[in-house]
Amino acid sequence: MKLHFSPGPSQLYPTVPQHLVSAVRSEIGSISHRGEAFHTLFSDTVSHLRQLLSIPTDYQVVFLSSATEAMERIIEGAVEKSSYHLVNGAFSKLFFTVAQDLKKDATAYTFTDSDFDDARIQVPREAELICVTQNETSIGMALSGELFSLLKARYPDKLIAVDIVSSVPYITLDFSYVDFVFFSVQKGFGLPPGLGVLIMSPAAIAKVNQLAEKGKAMGSYHQLTKLLAGAGKFETPTTPNTLGIYLLNNVAQDMLFKGIHHIRNETEGKGKLLYSFFDNKEGFRPFILEKYRSQTVIVVEVKKGSKNVIDRLKKQGIIVGSGYKEHKEHHIRIANFPALSITDVQKLLSFL
Amino acid sequence: MKLHFSPGPSQLYPTVPQHLVSAVRSEIGSISHRGEAFHTLFSDTVSHLRQLLSIPTDYQVVFLSSATEAMERIIEGAVEKSSYHLVNGAFSKLFFTVAQDLKKDATAYTFTDSDFDDARIQVPREAELICVTQNETSIGMALSGELFSLLKARYPDKLIAVDIVSSVPYITLDFSYVDFVFFSVQKGFGLPPGLGVLIMSPAAIAKVNQLAEKGKAMGSYHQLTKLLAGAGKFETPTTPNTLGIYLLNNVAQDMLFKGIHHIRNETEGKGKLLYSFFDNKEGFRPFILEKYRSQTVIVVEVKKGSKNVIDRLKKQGIIVGSGYKEHKEHHIRIANFPALSITDVQKLLSFL
Repeated sequence: MKLHFSPGPSQLYPTVPQHLVSAVRSEIGSISHRGEAFHTLFSDTVSHLRQLLSIPTDYQVVFLSSATEAMERIIEGAVEKSSYHLVNGAFSKLFFTVAQDLKKDATAYTFTDSDFDDARIQVPREAELICVTQNETSIGMALSGELFSLLKARYPDKLIAVDIVSSVPYITLDFSYVDFVFFSVQKGFGLPPGLGVLIMSPAAIAKVNQLAEKGKAMGSYHQLTKLLAGAGKFETPTTPNTLGIYLLNNVAQDMLFKGIHHIRNETEGKGKLLYSFFDNKEGFRPFILEKYRSQTVIVVEVKKGSKNVIDRLKKQGIIVGSGYKEHKEHHIRIANFPALSITDVQKLLSFL
Repeated sequence: MKLHFSPGPSQLYPTVPQHLVSAVRSEIGSISHRGEAFHTLFSDTVSHLRQLLSIPTDYQVVFLSSATEAMERIIEGAVEKSSYHLVNGAFSKLFFTVAQDLKKDATAYTFTDSDFDDARIQVPREAELICVTQNETSIGMALSGELFSLLKARYPDKLIAVDIVSSVPYITLDFSYVDFVFFSVQKGFGLPPGLGVLIMSPAAIAKVNQLAEKGKAMGSYHQLTKLLAGAGKFETPTTPNTLGIYLLNNVAQDMLFKGIHHIRNETEGKGKLLYSFFDNKEGFRPFILEKYRSQTVIVVEVKKGSKNVIDRLKKQGIIVGSGYKEHKEHHIRIANFPALSITDVQKLLSFL
C-alpha cells in the first residue's frame, strides 16, 4: 500500500476499509433515503460533527456533493446582488468566479502572505457576504481565527462564509463569528470524495429565507431552503451519497473516540517536523511566511524543480502533490491530515 | 441478508461487495482526479456505458451527483426561455418544477395511462426543449420508444430530454431521436446512490454552447460547458464521487460480460411473472393499463391497503416500496432490476 500525502483526495483514514465492510453487511447502499435507518444516520452524523467541531446547536448542517457545490449554493441562496472575496490562491479565486458566473457584483481583495494587511480589507457597503478561504490548499496559506472576530466586529451586518476544506477537523473555529462554513470529506476526514458539508448560522438561515420570500431565482433541487427543510426531518431533498455519509459518520465517531485534542496535537507535531525539516534542508524552502503557514497543507518550493522529487518519492510508494497550476513545476504539496501518522511523516522525510 | 425490491436505492448488484474490496486494494479513494489513473477510469466507464447502452460515439457522457441534478443542469444550460413537459407522476412533475424554480416559462401536458393521447402533445412554438420521463418511477408507467421518433418527426427543431432513471439498462433507446438522456446509478445498476450520468447529443451540445456564448447565467461549477470541457480530457470540473464511478465501471463491465440481451430477457421474464401473478391474485391489481406497464417498476394496488403487505414481507426479509406520496397507503412498488434473480422474485411471490 502506498502512502498518499497528496492534499485531497488523500490517504484514507485507517478505519475506512473496515467501515466499508460493515456498510455492505448493514446494506447501507440499499436503504431508502426516506426511511428510519437513513433518518438515524443523518441525525447521528450531524451529532458527531457537532461534537467534533463544536458546532452550536442552533447552526444547521446539510449535505452536498462537494465543497465547490457549497460555494455555488451559498452565493445562489444568500447573495442577492453583491459579494466580497478575500483572494489569495486558486480556491479563493474559484469562490470569486462562482459569484461572477452567477452574475453577482463580486469584488475582491487580492493578497499574498507577504502583503496581507487586514486594514486593506475594505468591504463595500452593498456587499452582503464576505467570502474567506481559511486554508488555501493551492499554496498552503492559513488565515488565523482572529480574522473572523475582527471582520464580524467591523462588519456586524454582513454574513461571513468560510472555506475550511483542507483544515477540518484540525481548525478550531469560533462559530459565533461566521455564518456559512463548508468542507468536503476527502481531505482531513480521509474519505473517498463525493460529499460536501455545509454549516449555517441562524443569521445565514434568516437571509436565505428572506431571499426566498422575495421569489429570487436560487437554483432548484439543492436550493438552501430545500436543504434546510430536509435537514429539519433528517432528510436530503434528493437521493444522497448515503455511503459517503455513513463513512463520515463512522470516521467522525472514530475521531471523537481518539479525541480531537489528541488529533490537533498530533497534527501540530507532524507540522513542526515537516516545516523544520524543509527550513533546514538545502534545495527546499517552505513557500509561505511562518506567520501564515498552514499546519495541514505544507507547500514547499524545490529549487531544482519538483518533478524529480515527486518521481523519486513515488518509486518508494510515497505520493505527494505537485504544485497547483502555475506552481506545478516548482512546488510540492504535502497533506498533513489525521490519516497519516508521525511514523509515516518520518518515512517520507527519510527519503529526501 | 434482505432482498431489496424497493425501487431505488435498491438491491446492490451481486458483484458490488467484491468491487468494494478491490477499490480499497487499488486505493481508488485516494487517487487524484487530475491524474492518469482517474483519466483511465473515466474513459473506461464511458466506453463500457457506450457499449452497454449503444450510445453513439458523437454523444458525450458526463458525471453528476444525481438524476435530479441532471434535470437542473439541463434546464439551466439548454433552455433560454421555455420548456415543455410531459407530466404523469411525481418525477416528471419534479422536472417541470425545476424549470419553474429556474424561472423558465414552462408548460406541461398532464396525463394518465387511461387518457394519454399523443395527439394532445401540443408543444408551443417558443418551447426549446421537450422533457419526457420515459419510466415514471412513482406509478410504474412506461412510454414506448416510438414516442421519441414521433416527437422528433413532429418537432425536428426542438431538443428532447429523457429521464431513464428507473428503466436503464433495460430500456433500448434509439439515441438518434433524443438529445439529453440521464439516469442515476442506484436503480437498475444496483449501486449505492450518489452518482448521476448525463448523455448529450451533438445538437444538445450546440445549443448549450450557443447559450454560453450569449453570456446567459447557467450555473457555475457544474455548468454543462464546464462538464463537457472536462469530459474532453476525461476529467470532472470538481472532485467527483470517484468510488461511485469505479463501481459503475465495474458493474457495467459485469453486465457486458453477462450480455445486455440476456439481462433484458431476464427482466421481461421476471416482469411477466410479476404482472401475471398480480393480474390473477385476489386483492391485488396492477395500477397501470397493460399497454403502459413498466417492466422495471411494477406498481400494484392493494385493496385492503399496502401497509399490511409491506410489513408481512418485511418480516420475511423482503423489502418492497410503498406507494409514492398520495398513493402511499394503497400501492406497493416492486423494482424489477437486474440485481434480483427470478428465484428472488419467486421467493417474493411465495409470501403473498
